[in-house]
Amino acid sequence: MGVELHKDLLESINIDVERHAKMMGMGLEGYKTQFMSQDNRPKAMEYFNWFMSEIQGQRIAEINQLRAEKKPAVGAFCIFVPEEIVVGAGGVCYGLCGGSNATVADAESELPRNICPLIKSAYGFKLQRTCAYTQSADFICGETTCEAKKKTWELLNKHHPVHVINVPHMKRERDLSIWQEEIKEFKERIESVTEKKLTLAEMLEGVEIINAKRAALLRLDKLRSQNPDVMPISGKDALFILQMGSMDDPVRYTQNVNNVCDELEVRLQKGISVFPKNTPRLMVLGTPIAIPNWKLHTAIESSGGCVINEESCTGHRYYKDNVDVTGVQSEDDLYHRLIERYAKIDCACFTPNTGRVEKIVQMYKERKADGVIYYTLSFCHTYNVESHLVTEALAKEGIPCLVIESDYSPEDAGQIKTRVEAFLESIAFKQKAQAFANK
Amino acid sequence: MGVELHKDLLESINIDVERHAKMMGMGLEGYKTQFMSQDNRPKAMEYFNWFMSEIQGQRIAEINQLRAEKKPAVGAFCIFVPEEIVVGAGGVCYGLCGGSNATVADAESELPRNICPLIKSAYGFKLQRTCAYTQSADFICGETTCEAKKKTWELLNKHHPVHVINVPHMKRERDLSIWQEEIKEFKERIESVTEKKLTLAEMLEGVEIINAKRAALLRLDKLRSQNPDVMPISGKDALFILQMGSMDDPVRYTQNVNNVCDELEVRLQKGISVFPKNTPRLMVLGTPIAIPNWKLHTAIESSGGCVINEESCTGHRYYKDNVDVTGVQSEDDLYHRLIERYAKIDCACFTPNTGRVEKIVQMYKERKADGVIYYTLSFCHTYNVESHLVTEALAKEGIPCLVIESDYSPEDAGQIKTRVEAFLESIAFKQKAQAFANK
Repeated sequence: MGVELHKDLLESINIDVERHAKMMGMGLEGYKTQFMSQDNRPKAMEYFNWFMSEIQGQRIAEINQLRAEKKPAVGAFCIFVPEEIVVGAGGVCYGLCGGSNATVADAESELPRNICPLIKSAYGFKLQRTCAYTQSADFICGETTCEAKKKTWELLNKHHPVHVINVPHMKRERDLSIWQEEIKEFKERIESVTEKKLTLAEMLEGVEIINAKRAALLRLDKLRSQNPDVMPISGKDALFILQMGSMDDPVRYTQNVNNVCDELEVRLQKGISVFPKNTPRLMVLGTPIAIPNWKLHTAIESSGGCVINEESCTGHRYYKDNVDVTGVQSEDDLYHRLIERYAKIDCACFTPNTGRVEKIVQMYKERKADGVIYYTLSFCHTYNVESHLVTEALAKEGIPCLVIESDYSPEDAGQIKTRVEAFLESIAFKQKAQAFANK
Repeated sequence: MGVELHKDLLESINIDVERHAKMMGMGLEGYKTQFMSQDNRPKAMEYFNWFMSEIQGQRIAEINQLRAEKKPAVGAFCIFVPEEIVVGAGGVCYGLCGGSNATVADAESELPRNICPLIKSAYGFKLQRTCAYTQSADFICGETTCEAKKKTWELLNKHHPVHVINVPHMKRERDLSIWQEEIKEFKERIESVTEKKLTLAEMLEGVEIINAKRAALLRLDKLRSQNPDVMPISGKDALFILQMGSMDDPVRYTQNVNNVCDELEVRLQKGISVFPKNTPRLMVLGTPIAIPNWKLHTAIESSGGCVINEESCTGHRYYKDNVDVTGVQSEDDLYHRLIERYAKIDCACFTPNTGRVEKIVQMYKERKADGVIYYTLSFCHTYNVESHLVTEALAKEGIPCLVIESDYSPEDAGQIKTRVEAFLESIAFKQKAQAFANK
């Protein structure tokens, strides 16, 4: 597999090679058990199987090849990092490892136990030197979207260079205007890596590439959720595609997402579904889902349900909006358009987070979904508090909803599965009752 | 007692009078047991005994008398709310009830369990209608210093009018400039209550009153901590004085703090200490301590230690800096000076929170303290993550430090006491060892 072939490279970026190989072994084993075992997967998923096998191998080689050409490699934890600019500079902007429980204990030597597992996991990967993405990053780009991350940058900065983008608390005119300054400074930081000026044309090219990527994902979203009787791809596979989007080369990735979409279109025409008709179709709302955190999707799809959408940063929140560059004449124009797009992200970090609740209800109705799982990573105060507003609105609409808060430990997998099963049963019962009523 | 005399008033502001009376009874009982029982308290504490007895009685009548005269009453949870402006308008800016466990369960019907107890407690007081301060507030002034609060305003706003001040994540020039706008808007909000323009002269008067209050508290700080052999007032009494500062009329309060200080000066001259010589003198660092949350101070001072300083929002962080109004000519000048002062607050909400670590070490040395307790309210991510930087610096200096995270439940009181006892023992042992070494 990829990792072994690239041992020298991994050593050169100061990876703990032995431990890293073990971690990758575990990850691949998990992928094999939870993904490869699925029946009737789209053929085009083969690309993603391959990518998974090379996720810490060939992909790392590609990134380091770019770095050798003085192209930037930026690690991120958040969809507020303007990847368009990095890609415009010919570089790569990727999500860092942060979905594994195996690094959490190490992180807890410096971080509190009761903060978000994603932060602890990512921090632990840095301490262990077991993520080749982290080790390859010219710098890690943090932001201020959550306070545990915000404060963790101060500690992480002692282990790896960190640049912080100040995403404001609010979205009023004056907040957006200082946010725009942040984008400009980020571009300058990129230029400090490439040691040359990044032009407007290059940045526009970056926007075009990322717009195409988001458009492909929006296409996938529609295909997997448009027909209540035909689920042409599993929620797990769709989630995996989404997860790979933060690591793969965006052009190659977009092509491969579109390949999957082409196949799904045919499946929809032919009525080929990977789940039986009447399988309860769920939307998952909330916080990001980093690999290999497949706990929730696995619980749902091994209990007779399926996932048709993630209203999450690993999902719809990421790809729902594109950057409109029509008529852009100057760099400032472009920064303004970038902020226009980024300010549409309805992250719970904003107060108020206008529009999210209404959007969720609308998404639910458009997709004719059968229920909603509001999922938050443990100790994520913003999504956690906001869940009250969301569930209140869902209750008013009579939309079935289950709230799950979880970390990366395997301990609650059984409990989650039991709760999901009960939730799916209640949905099935409701459907039956409705069918009788309609007779 | 005060509450019964003011039953009609309490009913008029929609207090649940019966429940409120029970809560007040519990609070007064706690005060009696934990405070009145102390030996050799300064005579000037009598005022504060009286104030405690009227805290939800006469003081509420005073506030509502002002409201009848169209003076503003603003409830707050944070020392970033510019009380100078409210006081300048002839009104009152006070801390809301938020230190009791008795309201937490109610709050958890709308808020997550795993957020800061202060927020839950305060929210519960609103739901229960058992805090006469909350019920008297024209509006509650929230801020964005922590994300659980930031998001809670969106919910609280459904129960009581809320105005939010956007305190930025950072303190760079551009962050401060938008923060200044917030101060201006806050002033306009105050004017919407008084229905008349607030003048520069009035605001300057407000600054003068609050500057005097902070100066009195700084004086108290010096008196209680300057002589390692003489502790003229208990940490509990000093904490109680600090806590009352967020509720009392600032002019009367300042006078009474200075009365205590006058008495402490005499005690210092005469060598009158409320604790034996060689009592380990501790500094408490961290998050605010709202009444009746006296758990930590009680644990320390009933275990043979004493508290000589709170590096906390209920303490030194609040009173360490004053507003310099020298040469202020215009309202904008004043807002600028206010921000200059408010930006000196070294709250962990900022990234980076420059200077706090060095300040703590300096405070420790100046006060010749014997140890430090880093205290955080549960789930306070900012202070919690920052504790790593603080404890690292303390360890380098060889300063004994104990980290305690706690909520308002009584369950961990025993555990905290045991840990504090062990900590005090280790300090005493260190002192003995040093004494031998010096022989």
